[in-house]
Amino acid sequence: MTVHDALAGFHERDWQTTRDGTLRLALVGLGWWTVEKAIPAIAASDHCETTVLVSSSTAKAERVAADVAADDDVAVPATPRGISYDEFHDGEATDDYDAVYVCTPNALHLEYVESAAEHGKHVLCEKPMEASVERAERMVAACDEHDVRLAVGYRMQTEPAIRRARELVREGAIGDPRLVHGANTQRLLDIFDSPDQWRLDPDLTGYGTSVMDLGVYPINTARFLLDADPVAVQASMRSNHDAFDDVPDEHAAFLVEFDDGTMASCTASQNAHENTFLEVTGTDGTLRLDPAFHMETDLSLSVDGSTVSVDQAQRDQMRELFDYFAHAILADASVSLDGEHGVVDLRTIAAIHRSADDGERKLLD
Amino acid sequence: MTVHDALAGFHERDWQTTRDGTLRLALVGLGWWTVEKAIPAIAASDHCETTVLVSSSTAKAERVAADVAADDDVAVPATPRGISYDEFHDGEATDDYDAVYVCTPNALHLEYVESAAEHGKHVLCEKPMEASVERAERMVAACDEHDVRLAVGYRMQTEPAIRRARELVREGAIGDPRLVHGANTQRLLDIFDSPDQWRLDPDLTGYGTSVMDLGVYPINTARFLLDADPVAVQASMRSNHDAFDDVPDEHAAFLVEFDDGTMASCTASQNAHENTFLEVTGTDGTLRLDPAFHMETDLSLSVDGSTVSVDQAQRDQMRELFDYFAHAILADASVSLDGEHGVVDLRTIAAIHRSADDGERKLLD
Repeated sequence: MTVHDALAGFHERDWQTTRDGTLRLALVGLGWWTVEKAIPAIAASDHCETTVLVSSSTAKAERVAADVAADDDVAVPATPRGISYDEFHDGEATDDYDAVYVCTPNALHLEYVESAAEHGKHVLCEKPMEASVERAERMVAACDEHDVRLAVGYRMQTEPAIRRARELVREGAIGDPRLVHGANTQRLLDIFDSPDQWRLDPDLTGYGTSVMDLGVYPINTARFLLDADPVAVQASMRSNHDAFDDVPDEHAAFLVEFDDGTMASCTASQNAHENTFLEVTGTDGTLRLDPAFHMETDLSLSVDGSTVSVDQAQRDQMRELFDYFAHAILADASVSLDGEHGVVDLRTIAAIHRSADDGERKLLD
Repeated sequence: MTVHDALAGFHERDWQTTRDGTLRLALVGLGWWTVEKAIPAIAASDHCETTVLVSSSTAKAERVAADVAADDDVAVPATPRGISYDEFHDGEATDDYDAVYVCTPNALHLEYVESAAEHGKHVLCEKPMEASVERAERMVAACDEHDVRLAVGYRMQTEPAIRRARELVREGAIGDPRLVHGANTQRLLDIFDSPDQWRLDPDLTGYGTSVMDLGVYPINTARFLLDADPVAVQASMRSNHDAFDDVPDEHAAFLVEFDDGTMASCTASQNAHENTFLEVTGTDGTLRLDPAFHMETDLSLSVDGSTVSVDQAQRDQMRELFDYFAHAILADASVSLDGEHGVVDLRTIAAIHRSADDGERKLLD
């Protein structure tokens, strides 16, 4: 296959079968990600509308709703209704939304997903799914019991450059995949003003911080590109900075073996210079995403002795994610990023932490 | 520090203190690397001259010597003398050379180094030093006993782009190093016509093929850049292709923890698309060598939100290596790539193989 052949004929939204319908969303958790990324993405989406905002108090939710409505850059069609977490659990405003987006600290996801399921609402939950494998499995069970859809917010899977990369891998552009490198590092303490935040609190973050919050990107994106799942892991971690006293993985390096025989060498850090890339080397070529994970993704392909940068238009990754989720519900289509899929990542991350604890390779079921 | 400050004031041969003197070399092992790479590099060098060629028979050595002398592109000053391995061991032609370059299969290095040391000749031995830690230690002991210099052919350490990279790390251009990625893959079966070759024969290659022959590059170059040594390793390996039946590591992924706390995630493969890079991420930046290891090295530096490609002129890496070795002997200067330094890599590689065998993290002394 030539490079040119490999790049021809890609459709960004290869999942789209209908352009009709709107899904009304309740957004649970109004932190900076929801306000700055999710709400504008939903406003710009084809299939979603923010109709309810849920926060610690009705007053806070209503204040954010008013701010959003007043923001000309966002341009929501109507002011969302603001309700408290308690009101959400009690079933307030259930006539006003069809599905729920959960974006709280990891260890709080379960309670909102359980209430959403009880209300018969579909769920899009941010990654990682929860603070532990057991709680993530309870999320899946709750959604199954009430026959609602559960999707996990792996926006990498709806990023056009990454979907194109997966298509290239599937078409054999790099031959058979053999080895993967993935890195996801950032300086958490520079992004947020205070070290007193939930990503460094084991009660809220779960197994740790760097692998849970950042390492999940190369793990999940490699799974998506390879169409393979982890079977074994090895890992080393360390925390030195005072702010990381309560979590084991200020920095982490880990190996993941996949069921197709591919092996991945990865790193993740909440306290190193921002660097994100994912690279797959096969028998016949190398595919590289760099940068990869922080809302901008560039793709290049090395085969036949030359490297081609693939000029894939940058899209708002959250807009793609919301439309993909809404479309799946409206068109009754399956999603690649469902709850069972997300549980696999948590099992992998849990095993990575166990391996770092005792220095032994851990097998996954 | 600004990017501009970080790049200012580098001297390619920062090790050079004299421009006088010539070292006469006997080359042991006349495979393609010696003939196509080493001999032209020596002919172009400032401080070396090929005066003796050593091969399986006097006739073969003399034939190669005549071919070299007839090659106008190489332009040797005089036809080298050709002798057999047996004659070399017996001390033939010792008046005609000052030092020996050993480029045979790994498991044969020791016998030539021992003879060279007995003849009072300094040694530059290709990497990895030998087939096992124990045999590498015997090389060091032999050279110590006879008071001759032993250097290992880590041409990465004399590559100007890599020396510049080390200077940038030392000057704090990326802050404190935290995480490393290194890859070295190639398609061995495409490079050589036949799978029947010593790199796939455990009696000649040692612990395996991909980590010994290729993984040694990211390991050693990371040590050089970080000025740190390995303290623990973890690894996974697999061989599937028939040609790799006798070695465990057609493909390998491994983690290396260094004594400065840095952790490296690496891959090596003798049967995947050629891909070589080394990347160090620190608290304040990322330094990347890509390509890194196959006779061409490009350096880039990401700090302050921008990436700068460092335009370092490409040099013949073997010429730099030979001049560095010769200069050290002529000027009585120490080298970074001495025998004890090389033994550390073999201990690391041996531990990587033990870790892949039983799935346990291995500590190094």
